Amino acid sequence: MDAKNKAIGVFDSGLGGLSAVRELMNVLPCESIVYFGDTGRVPYGSRSKDTIIKYAQQDVNFLLENNVKMIIAACGTVSSVATDLYNTSPVPYTGVVNPTAFAAAKATKNGRIGVIGTSATINSHSYKLKLLEINPEFQVFEQDCPLFVPLVENGFTNPEDIIVKSVVERYTDILKKEDVDTVILGCTHYPLLSDAIGKAMGEGVTLIDSGKATALYTAKLLEENNLKTENKEQGEYKFFVSDTPHNFESMASMFLGLDVRSQVTQIDIEQY
Amino acid sequence: MDAKNKAIGVFDSGLGGLSAVRELMNVLPCESIVYFGDTGRVPYGSRSKDTIIKYAQQDVNFLLENNVKMIIAACGTVSSVATDLYNTSPVPYTGVVNPTAFAAAKATKNGRIGVIGTSATINSHSYKLKLLEINPEFQVFEQDCPLFVPLVENGFTNPEDIIVKSVVERYTDILKKEDVDTVILGCTHYPLLSDAIGKAMGEGVTLIDSGKATALYTAKLLEENNLKTENKEQGEYKFFVSDTPHNFESMASMFLGLDVRSQVTQIDIEQY
Repeated sequence: MDAKNKAIGVFDSGLGGLSAVRELMNVLPCESIVYFGDTGRVPYGSRSKDTIIKYAQQDVNFLLENNVKMIIAACGTVSSVATDLYNTSPVPYTGVVNPTAFAAAKATKNGRIGVIGTSATINSHSYKLKLLEINPEFQVFEQDCPLFVPLVENGFTNPEDIIVKSVVERYTDILKKEDVDTVILGCTHYPLLSDAIGKAMGEGVTLIDSGKATALYTAKLLEENNLKTENKEQGEYKFFVSDTPHNFESMASMFLGLDVRSQVTQIDIEQY
Repeated sequence: MDAKNKAIGVFDSGLGGLSAVRELMNVLPCESIVYFGDTGRVPYGSRSKDTIIKYAQQDVNFLLENNVKMIIAACGTVSSVATDLYNTSPVPYTGVVNPTAFAAAKATKNGRIGVIGTSATINSHSYKLKLLEINPEFQVFEQDCPLFVPLVENGFTNPEDIIVKSVVERYTDILKKEDVDTVILGCTHYPLLSDAIGKAMGEGVTLIDSGKATALYTAKLLEENNLKTENKEQGEYKFFVSDTPHNFESMASMFLGLDVRSQVTQIDIEQY
């Protein structure tokens, strides 16, 4: 098959990456996508660096066996911790950190940027380092939000819910006090809390969705590498998971807004 | 070595089982303990039945290689889902469900019992089935509390904290309305929320800690099998984990009230 017409490979520690797939489908509707969600080993965000790197390499190996033309780590944790993949991947590769940092740098007016993510993402300072590389004058304020993923995965996203409201306010309080005008949602689960986060931060604060920024960057990357599909119809989508597909299917509609029942296959990721 | 003087093996999906170890140390101070916490694959509670059974068998295999005289699954999820282990273990084995159900049956006066646990535990109806086996007249009310483990693991246990209070009240509301007089804490993390749960349920409601009930049952089981140690001094404690020990150590003091830094070893559980 002509490399152009191969699928884009996307992986995440679980289901959150589907929020990035959704953006990818919007931006590049004719591209085919192979998605792997490591639902048998989620969450990565609280694990050690060595474990995250080992898991991410297995995820990449699985996608390469599926003959993809490029790979997106749609996972803030992997993008922040397993940075060697930029150099070792035999096909064009991107995480979510770099495209998202560039989008935030473009959006800020006062140069004061907030970053929220999992503990692993925040402890890596990946977004902060990239932002300071873009502009050393930026003031960057980081906050890990370990309860956000459990909230989203259990359906707590309504900004009027006292539980959602009190957790979001607790974590965003410091960013609000620091008068940031831009907040990076450094985890692919967080767009589902964007109403609540936007409300807590108040008007005039721009939220940067890492999935959206990465989808736009992917379009550019395909163009540059002469890898845009020649297909003119909607791409084909295949989904793989490492635990039984049951939970995946019931969650996918939330992240993706699509019924993916028939296209989900379980694989043993430890083999890769 | 005389079987009597071997250690007791305890395993859990992660750190919660240490709350049961703490009770075990109190009840049986001279017994040695080998603990395995599967921190590289935590949480089990949201995984499929097949995955939980596979993981639990590997955990048991690891403890057997460490030459233990009995095994405790200090994990509500494993006890509820991997029930075959009662029959297949070559050494005396107990989960937390049976001892805890008996303790609750003894405690209730009005026969109305609440059960809280992870989704896997509640969906298995393990506590309810055992309670109804003990007394078919019991009225049992079940509620899964998927946010409790993330709350505890992120230090949200203060009953005065609006986040803790609102999450606990949301989950216990139905049990309160059903006028239960006894609540089973069906997950080894939940004793750390017992102040908040007790407050939400109100006076006159007895909370049954599965770790404590299981420790008392273990003493009985050792006696019955003529396996009580002859050692008269404090037992020896060894701790194994499947992710780097770093997180384990910082959390252990919370669950265990002990500094275990020097006794923690990382193993590769996929080999068992």
